Parts: sequence; C-alpha cells; structure tokens
Amino acid sequence: MDRDRLETLLNEVKNGERTVEEAVASLSQLPYCDLGFARVDSHRQLRTGFAEVIFAQGKTIEQTSAIFAHLSCLHEKVLVTRISPEAAEVLVERFPGVRHHPLSRLVTFGYQEPVGETRIAILCAGTADLGVAEEAAITAEMRGIKVARVYDVGVAGIHRIFNELEMLQKMEVLVVVAGMEGALASVVAGLVSRPIVAVPTSVGYGASFGGLAPLLAMLNSCAAGITVVNIDNGFGAGTFASMVVENKGKK
Amino acid sequence: MDRDRLETLLNEVKNGERTVEEAVASLSQLPYCDLGFARVDSHRQLRTGFAEVIFAQGKTIEQTSAIFAHLSCLHEKVLVTRISPEAAEVLVERFPGVRHHPLSRLVTFGYQEPVGETRIAILCAGTADLGVAEEAAITAEMRGIKVARVYDVGVAGIHRIFNELEMLQKMEVLVVVAGMEGALASVVAGLVSRPIVAVPTSVGYGASFGGLAPLLAMLNSCAAGITVVNIDNGFGAGTFASMVVENKGKK
Amino acid sequence: MDRDRLETLLNEVKNGERTVEEAVASLSQLPYCDLGFARVDSHRQLRTGFAEVIFAQGKTIEQTSAIFAHLSCLHEKVLVTRISPEAAEVLVERFPGVRHHPLSRLVTFGYQEPVGETRIAILCAGTADLGVAEEAAITAEMRGIKVARVYDVGVAGIHRIFNELEMLQKMEVLVVVAGMEGALASVVAGLVSRPIVAVPTSVGYGASFGGLAPLLAMLNSCAAGITVVNIDNGFGAGTFASMVVENKGKK
Amino acid sequence: MDRDRLETLLNEVKNGERTVEEAVASLSQLPYCDLGFARVDSHRQLRTGFAEVIFAQGKTIEQTSAIFAHLSCLHEKVLVTRISPEAAEVLVERFPGVRHHPLSRLVTFGYQEPVGETRIAILCAGTADLGVAEEAAITAEMRGIKVARVYDVGVAGIHRIFNELEMLQKMEVLVVVAGMEGALASVVAGLVSRPIVAVPTSVGYGASFGGLAPLLAMLNSCAAGITVVNIDNGFGAGTFASMVVENKGKK
Amino acid sequence: MDRDRLETLLNEVKNGERTVEEAVASLSQLPYCDLGFARVDSHRQLRTGFAEVIFAQGKTIEQTSAIFAHLSCLHEKVLVTRISPEAAEVLVERFPGVRHHPLSRLVTFGYQEPVGETRIAILCAGTADLGVAEEAAITAEMRGIKVARVYDVGVAGIHRIFNELEMLQKMEVLVVVAGMEGALASVVAGLVSRPIVAVPTSVGYGASFGGLAPLLAMLNSCAAGITVVNIDNGFGAGTFASMVVENKGKK
Amino acid sequence: MDRDRLETLLNEVKNGERTVEEAVASLSQLPYCDLGFARVDSHRQLRTGFAEVIFAQGKTIEQTSAIFAHLSCLHEKVLVTRISPEAAEVLVERFPGVRHHPLSRLVTFGYQEPVGETRIAILCAGTADLGVAEEAAITAEMRGIKVARVYDVGVAGIHRIFNELEMLQKMEVLVVVAGMEGALASVVAGLVSRPIVAVPTSVGYGASFGGLAPLLAMLNSCAAGITVVNIDNGFGAGTFASMVVENKGKK
Amino acid sequence: MDRDRLETLLNEVKNGERTVEEAVASLSQLPYCDLGFARVDSHRQLRTGFAEVIFAQGKTIEQTSAIFAHLSCLHEKVLVTRISPEAAEVLVERFPGVRHHPLSRLVTFGYQEPVGETRIAILCAGTADLGVAEEAAITAEMRGIKVARVYDVGVAGIHRIFNELEMLQKMEVLVVVAGMEGALASVVAGLVSRPIVAVPTSVGYGASFGGLAPLLAMLNSCAAGITVVNIDNGFGAGTFASMVVENKGKK
Amino acid sequence: MDRDRLETLLNEVKNGERTVEEAVASLSQLPYCDLGFARVDSHRQLRTGFAEVIFAQGKTIEQTSAIFAHLSCLHEKVLVTRISPEAAEVLVERFPGVRHHPLSRLVTFGYQEPVGETRIAILCAGTADLGVAEEAAITAEMRGIKVARVYDVGVAGIHRIFNELEMLQKMEVLVVVAGMEGALASVVAGLVSRPIVAVPTSVGYGASFGGLAPLLAMLNSCAAGITVVNIDNGFGAGTFASMVVENKGKK
Repeated sequence: MDRDRLETLLNEVKNGERTVEEAVASLSQLPYCDLGFARVDSHRQLRTGFAEVIFAQGKTIEQTSAIFAHLSCLHEKVLVTRISPEAAEVLVERFPGVRHHPLSRLVTFGYQEPVGETRIAILCAGTADLGVAEEAAITAEMRGIKVARVYDVGVAGIHRIFNELEMLQKMEVLVVVAGMEGALASVVAGLVSRPIVAVPTSVGYGASFGGLAPLLAMLNSCAAGITVVNIDNGFGAGTFASMVVENKGKK
Repeated sequence: MDRDRLETLLNEVKNGERTVEEAVASLSQLPYCDLGFARVDSHRQLRTGFAEVIFAQGKTIEQTSAIFAHLSCLHEKVLVTRISPEAAEVLVERFPGVRHHPLSRLVTFGYQEPVGETRIAILCAGTADLGVAEEAAITAEMRGIKVARVYDVGVAGIHRIFNELEMLQKMEVLVVVAGMEGALASVVAGLVSRPIVAVPTSVGYGASFGGLAPLLAMLNSCAAGITVVNIDNGFGAGTFASMVVENKGKK
Repeated sequence: MDRDRLETLLNEVKNGERTVEEAVASLSQLPYCDLGFARVDSHRQLRTGFAEVIFAQGKTIEQTSAIFAHLSCLHEKVLVTRISPEAAEVLVERFPGVRHHPLSRLVTFGYQEPVGETRIAILCAGTADLGVAEEAAITAEMRGIKVARVYDVGVAGIHRIFNELEMLQKMEVLVVVAGMEGALASVVAGLVSRPIVAVPTSVGYGASFGGLAPLLAMLNSCAAGITVVNIDNGFGAGTFASMVVENKGKK
Repeated sequence: MDRDRLETLLNEVKNGERTVEEAVASLSQLPYCDLGFARVDSHRQLRTGFAEVIFAQGKTIEQTSAIFAHLSCLHEKVLVTRISPEAAEVLVERFPGVRHHPLSRLVTFGYQEPVGETRIAILCAGTADLGVAEEAAITAEMRGIKVARVYDVGVAGIHRIFNELEMLQKMEVLVVVAGMEGALASVVAGLVSRPIVAVPTSVGYGASFGGLAPLLAMLNSCAAGITVVNIDNGFGAGTFASMVVENKGKK
Repeated sequence: MDRDRLETLLNEVKNGERTVEEAVASLSQLPYCDLGFARVDSHRQLRTGFAEVIFAQGKTIEQTSAIFAHLSCLHEKVLVTRISPEAAEVLVERFPGVRHHPLSRLVTFGYQEPVGETRIAILCAGTADLGVAEEAAITAEMRGIKVARVYDVGVAGIHRIFNELEMLQKMEVLVVVAGMEGALASVVAGLVSRPIVAVPTSVGYGASFGGLAPLLAMLNSCAAGITVVNIDNGFGAGTFASMVVENKGKK
Repeated sequence: MDRDRLETLLNEVKNGERTVEEAVASLSQLPYCDLGFARVDSHRQLRTGFAEVIFAQGKTIEQTSAIFAHLSCLHEKVLVTRISPEAAEVLVERFPGVRHHPLSRLVTFGYQEPVGETRIAILCAGTADLGVAEEAAITAEMRGIKVARVYDVGVAGIHRIFNELEMLQKMEVLVVVAGMEGALASVVAGLVSRPIVAVPTSVGYGASFGGLAPLLAMLNSCAAGITVVNIDNGFGAGTFASMVVENKGKK
Repeated sequence: MDRDRLETLLNEVKNGERTVEEAVASLSQLPYCDLGFARVDSHRQLRTGFAEVIFAQGKTIEQTSAIFAHLSCLHEKVLVTRISPEAAEVLVERFPGVRHHPLSRLVTFGYQEPVGETRIAILCAGTADLGVAEEAAITAEMRGIKVARVYDVGVAGIHRIFNELEMLQKMEVLVVVAGMEGALASVVAGLVSRPIVAVPTSVGYGASFGGLAPLLAMLNSCAAGITVVNIDNGFGAGTFASMVVENKGKK
Repeated sequence: MDRDRLETLLNEVKNGERTVEEAVASLSQLPYCDLGFARVDSHRQLRTGFAEVIFAQGKTIEQTSAIFAHLSCLHEKVLVTRISPEAAEVLVERFPGVRHHPLSRLVTFGYQEPVGETRIAILCAGTADLGVAEEAAITAEMRGIKVARVYDVGVAGIHRIFNELEMLQKMEVLVVVAGMEGALASVVAGLVSRPIVAVPTSVGYGASFGGLAPLLAMLNSCAAGITVVNIDNGFGAGTFASMVVENKGKK
C-alpha cells in the first residue's frame, strides 16, 4: 500500500496514461502466486526484508518440493525449517545448490559463510540443545550475519561462561538456548548488558512438561533485557536477532 | 511399636506381673489426646524428634489457642506457622513467653537464640522473599541450630553471591529461597558442593502462576544436589535442613 | 571482571605500588551496598547501562523508600515499578523531583521528555491495555528515547492500523501490547518489517486464564520477528526495546 | 415423541383399532438397531436432519464395517470420519460406491459434487491445516451444500485475504481453520460481517500444546460473531455451518 | 475497501471532477474517531451490521462515559457490556433513554421489546446461570430479534426440558447456557435438530476451575451441531445467534 | 415414565373412563413448578428418593428464600448447601424450624438426630477439613442415617487411625475427607475392606492448586475400592454414601 | 491386627502354651511373601475380601508370570489387569485354566459366569468405550456378581436409554463409562435414583486432553449420587461397585 | 576462585616468580576441556565432590562415547544416566571395565560394591518403580555408600512396611520412590523420624498426567521432613542423599 506508488498510479489515470480498468486491476493485483494448496508470497522479501521461509512440518514432501521449486526460481536464498530427513533427501537430489543441515533440521539454498564482523552470539546450555542453537545460527547466517557459537555453557558449571564475558559484551544481540530449568538466560543477563533473546528447549523430562519449565522461567526472569520465543524455536530467535542487527546497519 | 517394650510386656504377662487385660489395654493405648476437633499428638516429639507444630491456616483462633494451650503445657518449645496477625495477638495476650514474628507469620514459645557453630545458610533472591526465608530460619533456630542469613542475592546481580562462596562452602546444608524464575538454586548448586533445599516462592506475577514457574525450574535444575519443597514452604525447608544437621550430631 | 583493570592491578602489585593485601581486598570488593534487607546494586548502571530499577511489589513502603533514598543519591534517574498508590504518595511527599504515573503504576525520579527522533512505537489493542503500554513507554523515555504511542488499534477494527503503517515502518523496534486473543502482534508482524516485542496482558476473562491465552498466541505466532515478555510486563518490553535502540546508537 | 402421532395412537386405542398391548409396544419401540456392540440410530436422520455419521477412531475395522453395512442399506449417504488408511481400504473393497479422501481422513458413500449457489466459505491459514479444512468442506458437500475453498491465507501475509473479501461477504457462514496462534479468525471477523465458525488445529509445536494456543485465542477473540469447535474438528464445523444454511433454506 | 466506490473515485479523478490530492485524502480517510485513549469505530455498523458495543470491563467510568457520549450521538442503539453498578449509575444519570440491566451487567440505549416471530431460544441450566443467559437474550433483542427464555432446565431434572421440545424445534438457533458439567448442550443437541451455540459459565466450584469443566465438555460434545463461545460470554453467543438469523432475513 | 401408570392410563382411555384430551394432558403434565427464575422439581423425591436440595451459591437471598418457601411447604425436610451467613440468617428469621450449621455452610429444615445403628463413618485428616466433613455428615443425617465422626486422623500421625480400625471395619461405607496430599484415603483403603468415598479439600497452599493435588492423588490411589467426588463436595459424598446404605435397607 | 487373635496369643503366653520367642515371631510374621522384586500380599483376601490383583502395566513378562504363579497356587481366582497381548499369551501357555480377554486387557484365572440376580448395570456411551466397560464388568463377575451390559447409549441419541430405565432402577449400583464430554453420567443420574460410579475414558481428541474433559465433567455433575474413578479405570469402578453389593449381601 | 591460590599467585607475581602475562593466563585458564560440541568440566570433582556424570538423553551415541572416553581417562569412576540400550552396548564394547544396568538405564565405569555400614535406605512402592529406585541406589553406591533396598511396600498393603521400621529408623536419609498417588512418602514420614527425599514416578495412567499426581502429592505432604526431586529423577535423589551422608563423614 505504498503511498508514492498510489500517487503515481492516480496521476497516470488523471493523465489518461492508464485506463480506469488498468488501475483497478493494478490495485487488486495479487502479491502472491497460488499453487492450489499454497499461496506463495512472492513480495514478502520486499515487505519484510527476507525471502519466504518454508515451514516443512505438516507439509507433504511434494508440497514442500513444489513450493521450494517456485521460491528457488524467484530468489537467491531459500530456507526450509523443521524438515524430515526424507524430505531433505528429495530436495538435495532434485535441486542443485541445496544443502541439508541434519542437526538443525534445516535445508538451505544459497548458503554462504558470512564475512565481516561477528554481531550475534548464540549460547546454549547443553549438548542436547545444539540442534536448536544451530537452527538459530544458520538462520542468521542465511541473512549474511556472522555469529559466534558458545555452546555447552550451562549453569551447572557456571565458570565456563566467565571466560566469554568480554566477547559477549561486544555483541549486538545474544541468543540464549536452554532446556531443563532455563536459568542460563537470567545468568547471562545478570553478567552482560546486551539484549537477549531466550529460546526454551524441550530438553528435559518429567516436570519439564515438554519445555514448559524453561519457558516459564525465561518469561519470569528477574533480569531485565530478556525476551522469549516459542519452545525449540531457533528459527524465530535467529530471525528476530537478525532483524535487530539489520535495523542498525540500515540507519 | 517398640520391640523391646513388646518383649518386656510379654514377659510380664508370662510372669503374671501383668494381666492379659492390662496388656491389651497397653497395646491399644492412644498416643494422642483427643480435644474433640483435634487429636493432639503428644508422642510426636519422641517419634520424630520435635514437638508438634501447629499449622494455623484454616483453624479458628479458638482452635489454635486450645491446641497451643495443650502443647505448651507438655513441651518447652512450640511453633505456630501461617498464623494471622489477629490470632497471633490472642496467643501473645493469653500465654506468657510467646513471641510473634510477623514477617514470617510465626508464633514461637520458648524461642532462644542458638549458640555454637553456624551449620545452615539460608539464601534468598529478593527482598520480597524475606518472609519465607525467615520462616525457614526461625524453624531451624527453634531446633537449636544456628543459621546464616544471606539475603537479596538474586541472579540479576550475580556477583553479589561470589563474596559469600567461601562461607557457603562451610555449611552443612543450604536453603535457597527464590521466586520469579527461581534460577538462584541452580546457580548456587553450580558454585558450591553442599546439598541444597530449594524453596520456590509465589513472588512474581503473570506467567509465574502463583509460584509454578520457580517450582518447575527448581525441579528441573540441571545441577545435581537440589531437592525442592512446596511453594512458600519455608517451614518445610527449615525442618528438613535441621533434620539433616541433627542426624549428623547424633551419630 | 575487567581484563584491563586486572592487568593494571597485577602490574601495580608487581611494581610494589600495591600490597598483596590491597589487591586481594580490591578483587573482593563488594559492588553493592548492604541495607540489611536488600543489597543495592550500585554498579549495575556500569554493568547493564542503566540505574537499578525498584520492583515495588512485595516490598513494604519503608523498604521501598529506603532503597529509593539510597539510589536517588547515587543516580540522576530512578524508576520504581508496580508501586501501590499509598507507597507512591509517600515517595512523592518525602523526595523532591519525584513524579507518580498512576495509570502505569510507576514512580519516576529525573523524568524528562525525550527529544530527537522517534525510535520506538508502542501499540496497544484496547483501552484496557493502556496501563501496560504506558509502563513500556515511560520506561523507554526514562532512558532518553522518544516513543510514538499508537493506542486502541485492536484487530476487531483492523483498518485502524492501516493508516499508521508508513510511520511504523520507520521505527527501529515496535512494542505491541494486547490482551484477549493477542492477535495484534501477528497482524502487525505481517504488515511491517520491524522487530516486534509482544506484551500479553491479563485483559479478558474466562478462558483468558489471566493472560495465558494471548501469551500462548504470541509465542505461537506464525509471523517471524516476534519475541514475547511476561504477561503485563510493560517494563520488560520497554527495557528490551531501549537496549536494542541504544545498541545502535553506541556502535 | 411426536404429539400428533401420540394423539393418533391414543385415538386408535379409544376406537379399538389398536389393542392396549400394541400401543404399549409402539410407545416402547426402539428407534435404533442393536448390533451387540453398537446401537445404530436409524431415526437420527428424521430427528436431526442427517444420517448417522460413523466416528471411526477407537473402533475396530470390523466394527466400523458392520455399522457401515447397516447404514449404507438404510440411507443414500453415509459419512465416516477419522478413519485409518487400513480401515478405509477395507470399506472401499467391500462396498461399491465408497470413496476414500485420505487428506481429510474421510470415507464417503453417495458423495456428489453439489450444484447451485456457493453458501459457505472455508478458509485455512496454512498448508498444514488443509486436512481439517477439507474435512469441513466435504462434510458440508455431503449435505448438498456448495462451498468455496480459500486456503493458505494466514496472517503472516495478511494481504492474501484482502482480494477475497468481496466474495466472503456474500457467504452465509464462514469456517476459519487455523493452527499456531489462530489469529486468522479474529482478522476475518474484523473484515467481514458474517458469522464465523472457528476451528483450531493442532498444527504447531512447543507452546501450542496440541492446539491449546489457537483454541484459547479463538475463544478470547476480541471480535464478536465467532464461535469455536474442538481442536481439529472439521466435521463439527462443517455440520454446524450446514445446519445454519439448511435452516435458512427450510423457512 | 468498496470496489464500486473505488471505481467511482477513479472515474472522478479521470474526469477531473476530483483532484489527485482529494483522492489520496479520501482513500486515507480514517473510518474512526480518535478520542485520545480510544479510536471509536464509526463505520463498524456498515462493516459488521451493528453499532459498536462498549466492553466496559477495564475501562474507567470516564472513559466509558466519553465513548458512550460519542456513540449515542452517532447511532440509535448502543450496548454496554460487563459494566459495574457504579459506572451504570453514571450513564443512567448523564444520558436520557439509558437503561441498566443489573443481572446481565448491561446498559442499553434505544432498547425496545422486539415484535414478530420468536427466532432464538435461550436455555439455561440453573438459576445461577441467569445473568449470562440474560446477557445473550438482551444482546439479541437489541438487534430487534425476539427470543424465548427457557430457564432452569438442567439435566439433574431432565424431564423439565421434554415439554419444551416442540417449541425448541421451531427455533432457528438455540443458545444453551450451563455451568458445572455443561451437559445440557449435549442433551439438547441429542433431542433437537437446530444449531446450538453453547455458553459455558463459571458457575460451580472446585474442579470446575472457573468454568474450564463445562468449556471442555461442550467442546468435546459427542453430538454434532454445537459450537462454543468463551466462558460467561453471553454477549458473544447472542451476537452470533443474531447474525445467523439476520443472514436469513437478508437473503 | 412409569410403565404401570401408562398401562392404566391407556386402559382408562380404552374404557372411555378418560378422554383423549385428558390423557394427552396427563402425559404432558409438568412434574415441576415454575417460579419464573427456577423450576422447582416437586417430583424429585419420588424419582431420586430425596427432596430437592437448594444449592445456594450463585443465587440471591430472595431467590433462595422463594425456593425454600416453596419446598418447605411440600416436604418435611429441606437442605440448603453452600449458604452465606447473611442468607442463612434470613431463612432462620423467616421460617420456623430452620437451623443454621455455620461450619458446614448448611441450613436444615426438619433436622433430627438419627437413631439406630451407625452405618457410615466420616474421617477427616485435619482440623481445617472439618467443615467439609460436617457437610457430609449432616447430609447423611438429614436422610435419617447415623454416622460416626472420626476427625483429625491425618497420616502425619498415622497411629491415630489404628485404634479406630475395628469400628471402621463394621461400617457399610466410609467417607474420607482430606486436603494437602490426600494420602489418608489410600491409607484407610489399605487397612479397611469397606468402600470409600474420598473428598479432596482445598485445604493447603502453593502447589495444592486449590485442591488439585489431593484430587489427583485420590483418583490415582493404588488401593482399589475408592471413588472420588469434587473438591470440597461434602454434600455429594454424603448423598452417595446414603444412597448406598438406603439401597441395602430397601432390598 | 485381630483383637481376638491377640487375646488368644496373650493367653497362650500366659498359660505357657507358647514361648515369648514364639509370640514375638508370631506378631512379627510377614503377611506377605517376598519374591525379591515384589512382596506378594497373601493376606489381602482376608483383609479386603478379595485376592490380590496383578497390575501388569510396567512389569516385565517374567515378573508378571512369577507373581501369577505364586498367587494362582494360593487362590482360586486371580485377575490380571492392563496386560499386553504378549504377556497374556505367555500366561495362557504356561498356566492351565487361564483366559485372556483382549478387549478389556484382562487375564483371568478361575473365571465363572455368575448366577443369580443381576445387581450391577454397566452402561457405556460409545463403541470405543467398550474395553473399559468390559474391564468393569469382568472385574465384578470375578467376584461372583452378575452384571447387565447396556452399551452404546450416549447422549447424542438420548432416546436409546429410555427403554432401559425400568431395568436400571432395579439395580443396586450403576457404572457409567463415557469419554468425550462424559454427559451420560449426569443424564442417567437425572433419570434413575441409584448410586452411580462414573468412569471417564480417554476416548476423544483435541481438547479432551486424554480424558480430562469427561473427568472434570463427571466431578462437576449437577446431579447428586455420582462418584468418579480415574480415567479408563474400569477395574476400580468394578471393584468399588462389587464392594457395595457385597456389603449388602453380608449384612 | 580459591582465595589461597589467589594469594599465592599474587605473591609469586610480587616476587617476580611469575610474570604478569603468566598470571593473567592462569586466572583465565579454562577449568574445562572443549570437545567442540561439549565443554567437559574436568574440575567438577574438586568443586562438587564427584566426577562429572553424563546425561545421555538427547546426545548422539558418538557424542556420549567421546565424552565418556575423555572422562574415563581423567577419573576412576564415571556414571552415565538415561542411556539407551544401543548406546550402552557401544560403550560396553569400546571400553573395558564398563557395566550396563538396563533396569536403571545406567552405565557405570569403576563400579564397586560398597562396604561398611548401610547409611541410606531406598524404598519403592511398586514393582514398576524399580528402575527409578535402582537409579538412586547405584548412584549412591558409585559414591561408595552402602544402601538398603526396601522394594514393593506401597500403601495398598501398608503392613508390609511395619516390619522395616526399626531398620529405617537407623538410616541417615531415606529415599522414597512412588508413582500413582505417591502416598508412601507421607506414610513413611509419619512413622520414621529421618529426612526423606521423595521421588515421584511416571508409573500410572489417566489422571496421573505423567507423574504430576505423585509430584503434587509429595510437595503437599502434611508430614514435615520431606523434599522432592523431579519425576523419575532417581539420579538426583541418590546424589542428594549421598551428599547429606558425605557431609557427615567429612566433619
């Protein structure tokens, strides 16, 4: 709904450069492509600063593949999240330039190691949280942002994080991934004055209730400067952190 | 159901020193006193090592007072928990030697400052957790155990706890009281090799859900050596910690 | 634990400019002030970029006042959150330069209307969400950041937000405050490519379960670029959004 | 318990056209057929305007098949919901005229494409919600009602729905199927003045808690004109929407 | 976003009857009125078929009164829901033609007893559910629809409903209000072939959990043809039922 | 729907002793009395073996009083449950023979101390559970059944119950009332071979979650022979236990 | 702890017919047999009126088989609940006289069709609830009690139950098994004046939450005379109902 | 952060025995070893009194094996918890001296039967709880502490525990493992005056909700002296109990 484009269009109508019918059509034009079972949003890159991401969970392999085919023609970079090994294999076979990251359950098209300054640090509490942390890391890297990985620094051995404080303080945003009781987010927020995006994970058992325990802990953190995403949502954290960093670059 | 006493009794019956009727009566004898609305458990001190404690919540003032009257005749020390200010005032007026501790909602009879070595440390995360921490502290003191109070050392300013580490390491048990996300228990367990009794509190709001958040966090702690009591149950933590310490003294 | 300061200190010890005892003391020095019931964290401004904030809920008026007195001597700006009208009245009476904001339950010391460019927009869905939105807004203003208020733009009348899109697109971060079903966050994220901090509120009834409904909705948003804070936590959202903006200024 | 039929029966008794025994038998007559493990309700079509539907979940294949055999003799149309692929295969083999719809987990007998005016629109938010949406669509079609399918119009790309508004406004009822945060129902209700039946789906992960998040969101919608059915209950939504439309036709 | 109006506007621009600036202004015109704390939606009657309703809960008396003043000038009928007795008294005093309905917590402006055929029946299970049932009834009456009230027909005395079946079968929609276990909705759906809007209420105690028990029961009804609104949401049920009936009248 | 009465009626019609119109009227006759806001169920005593009980919670004092007036004319015994002190006072003033039992929140009309053999024992765990236990006891006594009260026998002092075992074994049903962890029901079931109706109470705090803890414990009891009623539902337990006992008397 | 036996024993000691050592041994004698991993309770039949039942879930096949071997020597009847098909096959092979009931997941030893009067009726709402209903039925039959099975009478076709009312009214106890919304229990309680044991089942999906919906509905029933057992606990309901019936026979 | 070591280091710097660079390096030295995906905490034995334990759940077999290889070089004893049979087989094959305990899902390296006095008793309620109980037992034995196993003593046959009371009273700590309603912990605490660590298990079904029922029961125990660990957390209970016992030995 771009005001400038609207003014131009109206001027063209006024000047007879465009018929009323054309203008109506133009204003109604679909900014997406209908594949029958999916409406591929081809303008989202313009609108939100990044190509559409395919959330593969709950889609059949053929649906995922069809959407991927469409998007990989339109864009230089495509990201597929929560993909099964079977679906990933199909994409890798069918499309050149595709890469499967099994730990993070991602498929990437057009992935390149970012260069330049490291701007986001991604911490995780335990080895079992690695998949979610990697999902966040690669999501940011797909947007061209270099990240530092600081893994397995849970509070049971809190001294492991002290050596990293100086580096962390230089980052623009931190992503903290933790399951079980999720205390790492609060601890880091008490030590480093950077905005923190906390990702609770479903790592744990019993009264973890599938990640409810760290989710509630992170939402109730006594330290300010923490926001939270859905359980196991590494992609969401990576996207948000990237948007914060891109914001800065833009200005 | 003491085996020795049973043997003695049976020998007495055998030797005719005691009639069968007496023996039956003896074996059936009630180890409590029935006040109509309450059966005061006069043997509990022998059985569990401490006088009965009156849980005042849900009792009328007159019920509390009647049970208190009974127990304060039988024992040198009586503890009343979760008492309302109104009920406390009545007890203070009616019985000499009674003391009201409003912050911890306790009334004590026979309270004396313990002497000797400090054996339990009680930590709390924030000023609002003080009442629960004091409930734990005074409960232990009523059992004659000296405690160290380490208050307002929440993880938002985690450095506040570092100066206390040496002292904490010398304790036999730690009680850690925290609301909000309850991370303090995990942090302390990662720094000090002492058994920790964690007390979640209802301090917080929103997704704290009345203390559910720190309760789940503490139960899911990634650090070993932590056990948990009910939300706001300072009395339970103080009792358990004391029993651990007394165990040791006894051997 | 600043590396440079550590090197300096060690050099001074090496050069005999400082005794070992002095160095030990220095390294152990408490970066907080112990008021008995609270350890006021006087270094937090250095550590986290802002003066300590007093969370008044669960503190007695005298505790709040004592901490306020201490902090208002050390700092130019102090913020008190979730304060009762009674406690606010006491602070306003005792300390000059204090201002009470009843709708947002804040007390401020040193509040000044920020100047310069507007960098954060704060949206709320309904009139009943205003208090939480104001808490976020004033928190940011206390850090010197100018905010735009876009209130009562809930999705029941979704067209109300369309006129604001151009302005919203120019912001660095958006804070979206909504109760009931919390759909506003997803809708805005679908229309504007800015990072969004979503604040669920307890506005609603029945199956809202005290804000659980919008909390879950926001965490599960199908739109990327959203993070979430605790129910009714306007302060947390304002702080996080400010840290993102300050990050940018600093670089 | 038809009053007219009761009067007729009583008159027949009065006139000696029917014995007392016959009348008692008549009044007691079972309006269902007992298969041993199931009482097939053969009058339901009269009573509720539609043949009995077989809910296959939790039934063995033989139980489903036996009930199906019975109903497909009595009625021209039979619908089986939540059927496993194995059970569907058996029905398709055994009974002519049976059709399996795998995406919606339905089996139909006597299905015909409806003709005439489109009266219900069924919207879904994402490709993964398609199965539930199809269950609603085919349920309505089995009752002879033509439906419009508007799929993959989730709020992450909210502009996708704008082009459909004119058509939606012409429908008599809308069915909105959405998982994750379920915001689509509120958004549509804010744009179109038609009654909306919202269907939360279990699509999502983490804090979706199996569809609890969209269920609560839809129940708490700030837009009026929305009612909700059980999670993933496309059949219920299709039935209710059809009853509303049939109501109208009847009058 | 009226297509006709858009074409007209564009034609006027083409013909020079309207300047480009005027057209831009026109397209941008706010369809609501900004009172500062609220954006009153003056077009909603056109858009959704009914004037804006004021949800008074969480609004101050002065906010409610200001919105009421604005709307009662623009419209012939205004409805205020969930109003406190204090706020209702203020409205009754300030504005002529206002009526307070204390049982249903409603205030109406322009209320008239509907005439014509009865089209909706509203059933409630117990005397304690009456307030919610009345909220539904008056909401429908405000839209000019006549309703039948069938109160206190809970399943504990299920025979009470049998005498009403003939009448119920003639209605276009039924609203069933019930607390405790909410079984009434299923029972009515098993007896009457009309679409049913079920309203769970918070009537009950213990494991009712504030209305969760009847909410879940109604969502899981084994009878088809039932949809559900939020706990205690009589207004929502009355609105939805009215929209269904109006739909029919319109066609 | 008495078969005998139906046969008689039909015979009368056949014999011309009754007109068809009379028979229709007879079959339709309302077995309740409509007070406007309540349909008083005057046949319930015949149908369920006991007069209607008034559940006063959620009813206004005038509603309660009107229903009471009606029932106390029809019946010799009336029971009002969950009545407020204010409403009880009104009933006591207006109607002779009414008695208020404040602890159990009951009002009785026609209460008499039962005579004969004791058939039900009612146990409660703590003094705070007394009100619920008394509600069960008086409910049974209103039906003429003698009960034994065994109060304050919680498992913290498990020996208190051993002396009662012989008596308990002679009862026909036991009602066990307990809050906190509700272990008393399991313990009694492990010691006595009588059917047990367990009543969880809301006595407790923190993770009791309003009685959820004992409710779940009782439902999951490892001992067979236990059934459970709603939290704090002494009336329900007393009624069920009485029905079991009356069953026996009848045969 | 039989008083008579105690007196006899003491008399024997007094008279020298028994040594003190023998008496001590006698009083200490274990009323169970220790198999290492299980203590088989050989006195339970005396204590609770029935042989021990083996709960097979969570036990290995060998553990189940060993306990079964032990009990089937001591007793004429043994019941195994929640047994897997694999374990059942092993028992059937190894022990003569064993019978597997796959629908109810039971294995019986010594099962005989009961004779005499029918005393318990077991109702279930749908075909999918059959397994749980059969578990209740066979449990009662193993205790020699004849039961009536009234299956598939859910409230969606409520008329199916009317023909059974006369028979149901003659039973001593009813067991009502229902999933989904669990309304059948309330409906039956409103029609029949017999005590009802309600069994919620996990039949359903979505917001049934594994049987939570019918569990809460049954606990909150507005009809008195209902008690509830755990979800899917047919065994518990059958046991309780049998104990009520046996009670009666005994007196 | 050992004060003594700090003083020594500073003295060495002062005396020139150590360069500033060396001291900086020393103070920064990582007390863990970075394997890439895990930071093995080689100092934890010093810090917490025991070697690192590997939590195998959520780790790949290769990750587990690599960490095990590292730790088994550094330490004499290594414990792996929650290991799958496949991973256990790999460890047993690759490393000599490794032992798999399938029931408790543990792998041990350096396990030896402890000698000396028995200091901890581990009780479990049923055969199905054995795995969790064994996890606790072997955890303690790995720390050299002798334990007594008292299995299958659930409250359904409460007399089974009476014979063990004398022995239990001699222990220093009790670990009580129970599923279903978890009453065993309260019962033992009412009989024995020892501190109790309660472990809820996920044994049960239906309203057990994966162990929530015994968890809440244990947290709400009316008996003092009980603390609780996470559901099925035998390792946590064994560790805590051992720390209490070691405490004592040390002093």
